[in-house]
Amino acid sequence: MERRFALGEVPGVLWSPAAGGGRPLVLLGHGGGGHSRAPVLAARARRLVTAYGFAVAAVDAPGHGDRPRSAGDAWFAAEIGALLAAGEPLSQGIAAHTAALAARAVPEWRAVLDAVRALEPVVAGHPVGYWGLSLGTAIGLPLLAAEPRIAAAVLGLAGDDSLTAPAARVTVPVRFLLQWDDRLVRREAGLALFDALGSREKTLHANPGGHGGVPAAEGEQAERFLAGHLRAPGPAS
Amino acid sequence: MERRFALGEVPGVLWSPAAGGGRPLVLLGHGGGGHSRAPVLAARARRLVTAYGFAVAAVDAPGHGDRPRSAGDAWFAAEIGALLAAGEPLSQGIAAHTAALAARAVPEWRAVLDAVRALEPVVAGHPVGYWGLSLGTAIGLPLLAAEPRIAAAVLGLAGDDSLTAPAARVTVPVRFLLQWDDRLVRREAGLALFDALGSREKTLHANPGGHGGVPAAEGEQAERFLAGHLRAPGPAS
Repeated sequence: MERRFALGEVPGVLWSPAAGGGRPLVLLGHGGGGHSRAPVLAARARRLVTAYGFAVAAVDAPGHGDRPRSAGDAWFAAEIGALLAAGEPLSQGIAAHTAALAARAVPEWRAVLDAVRALEPVVAGHPVGYWGLSLGTAIGLPLLAAEPRIAAAVLGLAGDDSLTAPAARVTVPVRFLLQWDDRLVRREAGLALFDALGSREKTLHANPGGHGGVPAAEGEQAERFLAGHLRAPGPAS
Repeated sequence: MERRFALGEVPGVLWSPAAGGGRPLVLLGHGGGGHSRAPVLAARARRLVTAYGFAVAAVDAPGHGDRPRSAGDAWFAAEIGALLAAGEPLSQGIAAHTAALAARAVPEWRAVLDAVRALEPVVAGHPVGYWGLSLGTAIGLPLLAAEPRIAAAVLGLAGDDSLTAPAARVTVPVRFLLQWDDRLVRREAGLALFDALGSREKTLHANPGGHGGVPAAEGEQAERFLAGHLRAPGPAS
């Protein structure tokens, strides 16, 4: 079941099984230039709903999807595309814009979490997970640092000095994905961010390939990781 | 079913289900100072046999277990223990001794593989996997480079310049385990060895903790990885 919603100026999507008892909720953050209705998010949500029985929520980050876009937001989207095409690493300008964007996104996510738990009694009282790579990690780290209701997270494809401080405040189990040949996020930057994570239980999974090339099997293993920590039964297979 | 054997001067153990059809074989290499009957190997073999229906073989590496021990071998075992206790990294002397030991161990493993496939018809024609960490990786890399019958490997807890060349000749899928706070094998050395692996399909899994602290769940995931590549059915759970 897929329902669109808007919380104030923040549009989003809530996916859930058509029926059934209490269930964990997973918050799904998109990457830079993406949005809550992107096919990659819908496919992940479908697996989390059908294989694990979770509810899944996604929202458009500030300046993304159906939200108003400032000149800076337009520059950000174009610049990320240009860096990816040129095989160049993230710039200081991108990092600064991302940090400002995350500062706005964190209270929005917390409000969405409040609303979903209030309106969907089946998720209230059950643990919450977070899944976000790249920009989803830049937003996810300060969110995890601020939000005690999130019990486990899948992060990665990110690394920047500005993320070190929020990473150090994260304490929940983290699966951290790194692409060994990522030209947008340098290998050393990703390794340093994993190192900075404050979590006692954290695992780095690195695979060959570029920023967009996380293997499908790695994503499915990350679903199992989340399911294990949210105490849901696994898929039948 | 557990059977001890001796192939020439090489003592070993073969574990297998009591009955049943054709099955993959996994070669299990022990760490420095260990041997083929160590409880950690027997526990891994038991899981591979009972959960996946594999046959599993282990042998004593040169200078280990029930095999004659030279003055150099005795120094090697004592030195590794001393380095672990002191939190010091592997020395050049250890690396040189390990390389000489691996040069002897590779033809021994290949002879064991020949013998097991000749005497155990249920494994002939089925794929072979290799599992060895630390010293088991120092032996496993040149073995994988030399032995085309091995189709996938679990390696890790190793890193040394002398391993770069054999690592580059490995082409099969590899799961590589690294301990983020390993003081015996420095983080940078482990990352460099993963980087050097020639395999197109390779995944690095890193967890907090020291040389001996690989999480149990990581080992179980590595079993699933091997099973997937040896095309065996997974555990019932």
